[in-house]
Amino acid sequence: MYADQIPNAFYAQSGGVTAVINVSALGVIQTAATYPDKIGNIYAGQNGILGALREELIDVSQESREAIQGLMTTPSGAFGSCRYKLKGIDENRAEYERLIEVFRAHNIRYFFYNGGGDSADTCQKVSEIGEKMGFPLQAIHIPKTIDNDLPFTDNCPGFGSVAKYVALSTQEAAMDIASMCSTSTKVFILEVMGRHAGWIAGAAGLAAHEQGDAPHIILFPEIAFDEARFLAKVKETVETYGFCVIVASEGTQTADGQLLSGSTSRDAFGHVQLGGLAPKLANLIKQAHGYKHHWAVADYLQRAARHIASQTDLDQAFALGKAAVDLAMEGKNALMPTIERVSDAPYEWQIGTAPLDEVANQEKMMPRSFFSDDGFGITAEARRYFAPLIAGEAYPEYTNGLPVYVKLEKHLVDKKLPPDERW
Amino acid sequence: MYADQIPNAFYAQSGGVTAVINVSALGVIQTAATYPDKIGNIYAGQNGILGALREELIDVSQESREAIQGLMTTPSGAFGSCRYKLKGIDENRAEYERLIEVFRAHNIRYFFYNGGGDSADTCQKVSEIGEKMGFPLQAIHIPKTIDNDLPFTDNCPGFGSVAKYVALSTQEAAMDIASMCSTSTKVFILEVMGRHAGWIAGAAGLAAHEQGDAPHIILFPEIAFDEARFLAKVKETVETYGFCVIVASEGTQTADGQLLSGSTSRDAFGHVQLGGLAPKLANLIKQAHGYKHHWAVADYLQRAARHIASQTDLDQAFALGKAAVDLAMEGKNALMPTIERVSDAPYEWQIGTAPLDEVANQEKMMPRSFFSDDGFGITAEARRYFAPLIAGEAYPEYTNGLPVYVKLEKHLVDKKLPPDERW
Repeated sequence: MYADQIPNAFYAQSGGVTAVINVSALGVIQTAATYPDKIGNIYAGQNGILGALREELIDVSQESREAIQGLMTTPSGAFGSCRYKLKGIDENRAEYERLIEVFRAHNIRYFFYNGGGDSADTCQKVSEIGEKMGFPLQAIHIPKTIDNDLPFTDNCPGFGSVAKYVALSTQEAAMDIASMCSTSTKVFILEVMGRHAGWIAGAAGLAAHEQGDAPHIILFPEIAFDEARFLAKVKETVETYGFCVIVASEGTQTADGQLLSGSTSRDAFGHVQLGGLAPKLANLIKQAHGYKHHWAVADYLQRAARHIASQTDLDQAFALGKAAVDLAMEGKNALMPTIERVSDAPYEWQIGTAPLDEVANQEKMMPRSFFSDDGFGITAEARRYFAPLIAGEAYPEYTNGLPVYVKLEKHLVDKKLPPDERW
Repeated sequence: MYADQIPNAFYAQSGGVTAVINVSALGVIQTAATYPDKIGNIYAGQNGILGALREELIDVSQESREAIQGLMTTPSGAFGSCRYKLKGIDENRAEYERLIEVFRAHNIRYFFYNGGGDSADTCQKVSEIGEKMGFPLQAIHIPKTIDNDLPFTDNCPGFGSVAKYVALSTQEAAMDIASMCSTSTKVFILEVMGRHAGWIAGAAGLAAHEQGDAPHIILFPEIAFDEARFLAKVKETVETYGFCVIVASEGTQTADGQLLSGSTSRDAFGHVQLGGLAPKLANLIKQAHGYKHHWAVADYLQRAARHIASQTDLDQAFALGKAAVDLAMEGKNALMPTIERVSDAPYEWQIGTAPLDEVANQEKMMPRSFFSDDGFGITAEARRYFAPLIAGEAYPEYTNGLPVYVKLEKHLVDKKLPPDERW
């Protein structure tokens, strides 16, 4: 086989970025380099899958060794990500055909797609249509979502670092409030991400070690919000401990499915764009009890917080990127490598796999056994699950007081197809 | 002199706590121990000055060596702080007399008060009234305020760590937005503290290294907010760079002094309690330009973030605690030790002093020369000022993925005065 016939690989980042998605990219890139006879170049989609549709392919080999190594410590999506959901094949077959055309033009036979549930679905469809179009490729999905809601895997890269950030921030803010509550703020609310699943808010429970420790109340999307019960619990907590710390999932909702958050705008996937829950809760409490309150909304700070990323998360993000390439080299297709937990303490894990057609578009909620009886906290079982995921501090390097994060050059490969204005 | 006649020292924390106020406490405690012939016990006020008024004195000598050493890495006010402003001597002479009574009962001749402008004022008054009441004591104020608004000192302990947190968070969140802005969020707003002075928001400017880097817009309390100019700048930024990152001081206000933030509740000092500016700005932008936006409110997370404290800040917090004791031992009174900047780069500083009657109730605003011409950014001169303050990472230890922060036992000294229900 001539060198220029060695098939190439395509890698793309999808959806909300994380503190460690670039570590999975590094796992792909470094592992691919160990198969020089089987993988030619790695092309990364500029701004995710849109890079493939637009034939905007970043030539990874043109980046410096330092820049590539810097992916280990750089948050965000270094190649660019996008919120762009491919429609069903029947609705927009042209989109899938375009992908295959681009892949064919650049001799791309490996498709590594790094994202959440929607991307798993796309990955699966690309694999199907490639086969139908006589251009079979190996499509491997690399899990990534701070929401931790993918099935079959113990957890999702990106989650452990958010969990660490949220638990740590809860711990720190709670100490602040505890030290001043006799004359100042009595109630503090931290709003965190989590549309449908309460994993992120649940991880905040790790901040509590003893009876009375914060967080005193966690609000989960899975547990229907009951205003009267909530307000009673706030009052009881303030009267018992002098203050009350609340961690609230953005997706907190009432029994009839109404989001407490006021916002109603929607993103490109049609998901409701949330935010603004914390001030709403603060207002409820103020009106009912008159307590002085403060609130914080972590928003992007939580998922970008590479400065306090979890070492477990980093290790798993890399391992899954590596596994994706290894699986492709074994001839596998339409799979997602997963994390399989072997034991809680000491935490042991190994790589498994899940078929994409079973992964796609499923959301894994927190199990009932993770919620305390009153629904405002987590159980010991949940703590055993969460604890190892935030272990270890994977600090970046610093210069002049700020982390050294890399910015790639993003040299694009010459286009081989005629311009196509559809994307 | 008999051992039980060696005078004691009183230390109290005042107002909003910081990531490093306990480091100043440690500076006081460890330095006092080097003067065994001149300082007997150190009593810390439980919940600040209220501890003195209520005769709730924490006996520092009862804490374990590990707990005291742990003050170096523990945020919040380890002895408790309070928002409690003593009135003028004429209005409430009884309050000052009570303090002197308690000090006299416990043979306290040194008063170390760790706080901001209001505390400097109290410290000065306590010194005056002690003298008038025939119980002269040495009152030394140790500067502390994340707002960085005390005069005479290069900066205030607590500020450098908030500055580091805010610059770092801006840098990380901006990378997140940059990597997704082609299809997702175009505008991100981070609301930070700063009622009257824009120091904290200004420090976010350190995140920018090149033209076009975030933050693209900083809103300062010192610069009147002009909605039309602001919205035009947002639009221009999005059109030029694809996204716009805004860091907004909570105290942002219009030319006629109206706060943009909606909240109107007041704290114990009579200060307006702010918050809610970010969603307001987001709404303005949404209505004017329709951009998809996200916003974060850092609130207490910023001032409690010991996990990413600045080493400079830590060093200075300790040095000022130490200097307070040294000054008292030199017979000084009604002073505040200060940081004097000797040079910007390399950053060199030394301890100076300022008389309390000149410190009290003055607020130091950012100088005009620190604001860029359009008022939306900082100048090179400002960068030279801010840069050394965030230098160095003073990491705490971690166990199981979370920082090890100490909690003191807080053994109270036996009361010597009859109960007094006034406080």
